[in-house]
Amino acid sequence: MSDGNLPQVVIVGAGFGGLNAAQKLAKLPVDVTVLDRKNYHTFQPLLYQVATAGLSPGEIAAPIRGVLKHGRKPRVLLAEVVGFDTEQKQVQFRNGTHLPYDYLIVATGSTHSYFGHDDWATLAPGLKTIEDATEIRRRVLLAFELAERRASIAGKAEPVHFVIVGGGPTGVELAGTLAEIARKTIAQDFDHIDPRQTRILLIEGAPRVLPAYPEDLSRSAEKQLHKLGVEVLDHVVVTSIEPGLVRAGERVYPSTVTLWAAGVAASPLGKALGAPVDKHGRVLVNSDLSVPGHPEVFVIGDLANLVDPKTGQPLPGLAPVAIQQGRFIAEAIGRDLHRESRKPFHYHDKGTLATIGRAAAVADLGKNLHFSGFVAWMLWLFVHLLYLVGFRNRLLVLIEWGWSYLTYQRSARLITGSTQLPGWAQQQKLHETNEPSVENEHDLGSTAAD
Amino acid sequence: MSDGNLPQVVIVGAGFGGLNAAQKLAKLPVDVTVLDRKNYHTFQPLLYQVATAGLSPGEIAAPIRGVLKHGRKPRVLLAEVVGFDTEQKQVQFRNGTHLPYDYLIVATGSTHSYFGHDDWATLAPGLKTIEDATEIRRRVLLAFELAERRASIAGKAEPVHFVIVGGGPTGVELAGTLAEIARKTIAQDFDHIDPRQTRILLIEGAPRVLPAYPEDLSRSAEKQLHKLGVEVLDHVVVTSIEPGLVRAGERVYPSTVTLWAAGVAASPLGKALGAPVDKHGRVLVNSDLSVPGHPEVFVIGDLANLVDPKTGQPLPGLAPVAIQQGRFIAEAIGRDLHRESRKPFHYHDKGTLATIGRAAAVADLGKNLHFSGFVAWMLWLFVHLLYLVGFRNRLLVLIEWGWSYLTYQRSARLITGSTQLPGWAQQQKLHETNEPSVENEHDLGSTAAD
Repeated sequence: MSDGNLPQVVIVGAGFGGLNAAQKLAKLPVDVTVLDRKNYHTFQPLLYQVATAGLSPGEIAAPIRGVLKHGRKPRVLLAEVVGFDTEQKQVQFRNGTHLPYDYLIVATGSTHSYFGHDDWATLAPGLKTIEDATEIRRRVLLAFELAERRASIAGKAEPVHFVIVGGGPTGVELAGTLAEIARKTIAQDFDHIDPRQTRILLIEGAPRVLPAYPEDLSRSAEKQLHKLGVEVLDHVVVTSIEPGLVRAGERVYPSTVTLWAAGVAASPLGKALGAPVDKHGRVLVNSDLSVPGHPEVFVIGDLANLVDPKTGQPLPGLAPVAIQQGRFIAEAIGRDLHRESRKPFHYHDKGTLATIGRAAAVADLGKNLHFSGFVAWMLWLFVHLLYLVGFRNRLLVLIEWGWSYLTYQRSARLITGSTQLPGWAQQQKLHETNEPSVENEHDLGSTAAD
Repeated sequence: MSDGNLPQVVIVGAGFGGLNAAQKLAKLPVDVTVLDRKNYHTFQPLLYQVATAGLSPGEIAAPIRGVLKHGRKPRVLLAEVVGFDTEQKQVQFRNGTHLPYDYLIVATGSTHSYFGHDDWATLAPGLKTIEDATEIRRRVLLAFELAERRASIAGKAEPVHFVIVGGGPTGVELAGTLAEIARKTIAQDFDHIDPRQTRILLIEGAPRVLPAYPEDLSRSAEKQLHKLGVEVLDHVVVTSIEPGLVRAGERVYPSTVTLWAAGVAASPLGKALGAPVDKHGRVLVNSDLSVPGHPEVFVIGDLANLVDPKTGQPLPGLAPVAIQQGRFIAEAIGRDLHRESRKPFHYHDKGTLATIGRAAAVADLGKNLHFSGFVAWMLWLFVHLLYLVGFRNRLLVLIEWGWSYLTYQRSARLITGSTQLPGWAQQQKLHETNEPSVENEHDLGSTAAD
């Protein structure tokens, strides 16, 4: 398949950017190699559905080899890239070997950032990978099971507390869906605890959730969250995450399961390029998405920082940006091959959508087109089914969603892995001894009585 | 829900036996508690489909609370039982607490047995749980990815070897399905290796595979396996499992991934009852499935040893046996409540089925009704869809199967967890240095040329 005379294009990362670049490059006279640590593409916008037991991992992930099997097939390798030699034009692997390139596309996205508190990671998992999602699912389902067991055997019924740190799209999705699960899906499943008493706290440091959205939509999202039974705390900065609790300065919030949706940092491979990066680790790219001084090296997607001339802000870390950039690179390389000059990348913003729960969402389709509630949710559903990679997954996901919508049931309610919660022992002790000292206990108490 | 005056029935284990007992007991004036280490029931007959990426875990597992929500709901607790006090009539939990019972039903099934070689467990996983299945899936898919990477970067194409130890129904299913994957599903997916060169070896210690079946069906199964590309070695006893190889006396078989389908031992909770057990750890029960000296304690399913008067052999460890026994217990307890004497349990054998691959199976429906191939496979499909717990799963599984049958695609091809194979480094070294000393290398070589 490989032809020594053709330019070698190496793509690192099979997310939205990498896959779209590979698909478009299949039409050019180049040899394409796609490298990823995983053998599958993850449809990240639906990861929260796996974390909340609505979908199975297999329904939002597609084997890379399967996705890229049409047309001229690229070479696909499961490999962990640890660095680059941009002078020798080589990609370096963890196992010491390397791969030469003529063109390099780095599309390794972003990861969680705990703002220097890496010890919070085990106490408050974030949501970036399939493994993250099944870990969150495990903790959420286990919290109810352990509460039921304690109530049943020890005779102490204590409500489950979920604290979600970060009110961006992921935090809002998680909070809304967890509320739905507690108030509807499993409401009748237990004898000794009442899942409807579950407290779901969404903590956002900014003055409003979804701070990247227009203010009216943030307010609407908060209203929709309240309706689902989520307490939203704006303007509250978390200062400490400990087993069984979250602190914000003097305030202490009990937490059975804490989830992290606050910080995002660029993949460390951005810095490995030796190019200038911003404070989040994103590479400051040229207008054609190439790295300064290296026209043969491109960075796209969440890992790139390109200022949008329309807003004066860096382009957001959204799937449509990565998709358009992936396609743009293929065009740019095509122009190189025809000895035409490259054009600058322009992002076509078709609007942004955030889902909150069953028939609850917000949509920003430009200045005068703001939607909330059912219409926004239908829009969100349509767009996500449309983009979901592979026909088969789309059909299965539609069936799952139809079933879930009609019955409130969530099918993937499996606790896989350990049946212990981290810090559960400490937490139990904490609940038993510290409760009177929890400062806002009455605040939380009054909400629970709603 | 719980009424102190009603007899307390505690069921340990939510497999086929435990669930069926709970469902039937819901109609009696008793309080039922179901205990399990997991929050879901696993449909074990289809576990091999998860291990071979045909189905997702969520499609063959159903939350116990969901399955038992109809009629009078039993109490369901996620708990690890470690022992029993049959004098005080208490179930003992790992965390030190206990639960009293009036009736106890122990239905904790079986686990792998490595015949005293517990160190083989990490080198050759068996197939009993969802976690086992995803681990096998990980190793199988990873074997091809790593072979492709080595071939691509180091320029050395080496075929993948699968060795399955044990030619019972699970070994036959795994071998047949792995052959299908290698020869069809992923045949076109790689550039540097040819998955059709994959060697799949099924090693059975007895003179024929499926030794519990009539001889003509064993022979037919072997023929169907050969057609799919599996090498069957009868009468070969494995003496050692090491990284990268399997030994049987003097003979050495290279193995990229070794799977264990040879030994089954009863759950250790059988011994914990203090009742007499056979050499496999199965409890020797009375004809009413109660434990000698304890009419209030029952053991059912794979954990029970009850001799079938028709064959003179213990009843086999099959789902229909466990299901019928679970229902029988509910009837026996009902008779106790009406002060009627219990009847002995009789197994109604409707026949046994083993699947081999796409449109390949054997069916033994009694003395003169032996089927092979497509007819047996349709029968197998029908019976398994019929029994699969929950309507929704049935529909989804049918879609998956239809898709898989028409396209040869397997949708759940995700490598989750680590992207290293255990012993991979050693194995690599072994392949490089020991190859001339592999005694039957020419045997294997000639088969690969078929």
